[in-house]
Amino acid sequence: MTLVLKKTDEAFGMTVSNEKGLSIQMDASPDLGGKDSGMRPMEVLASSLAGCISVDVILILRKQRIELTHYNVIIDTKRAEGVPAPFESIHLTFEFSKEVDPDKAERAVKLAKEKYCSVSASLHPDITITHEIRFI
Amino acid sequence: MTLVLKKTDEAFGMTVSNEKGLSIQMDASPDLGGKDSGMRPMEVLASSLAGCISVDVILILRKQRIELTHYNVIIDTKRAEGVPAPFESIHLTFEFSKEVDPDKAERAVKLAKEKYCSVSASLHPDITITHEIRFI
Repeated sequence: MTLVLKKTDEAFGMTVSNEKGLSIQMDASPDLGGKDSGMRPMEVLASSLAGCISVDVILILRKQRIELTHYNVIIDTKRAEGVPAPFESIHLTFEFSKEVDPDKAERAVKLAKEKYCSVSASLHPDITITHEIRFI
Repeated sequence: MTLVLKKTDEAFGMTVSNEKGLSIQMDASPDLGGKDSGMRPMEVLASSLAGCISVDVILILRKQRIELTHYNVIIDTKRAEGVPAPFESIHLTFEFSKEVDPDKAERAVKLAKEKYCSVSASLHPDITITHEIRFI
């Protein structure tokens, strides 16, 4: 995997692109002089975790022929104080459509989080990752 | 920090938005049925590391009144084989404009990576993060 980050303005605006030309924008906090041209790097990190787990959740349920008409994840994080300020905990609230069997949903989330997701496996083991599931 | 991930198509397309409405797109690999509507979660994770270090590098150099007319970072990663496949190593190649003093550039990158960056501090300590600097 090769990616290229380019600084895009005179402050902290940045774009990262992959080999296919897909990209994300990032920026620093306005406190530091950022201009809100993109999410902050720690938000992007938390997003990658929820995205990775979601790919595996969708895949596991699809193998059981369960399609998700509604699927959201709310991501709440807690960071250490000081510099650096790594994540102490990340809480993920999964929202499934109410047709999905609760046991199958719980099993898919647990397997994705603990067994399959490469982002989980790349995070510091001191970060506590918890979850809950809602049916809507 | 609260973020919301929403599934955006019938396969693996996803958007994550923050409280300001800034967002990133992610998708699974086409091998799994993804449609290349966004970067893959592991690419997003690597991007967050380069973005975080870059914010601190720019900030450190700005305090020394060094503005960066050219600033790119090339991100190369190596992943473990198997499932999950976390990063084993991430190599960052920093490109600065050739007006920048090499010692100041090296010091800024080292400080950002090892002391200030909250994404670095959130990654698994087994991931080796290396770097080089080029002046263009």
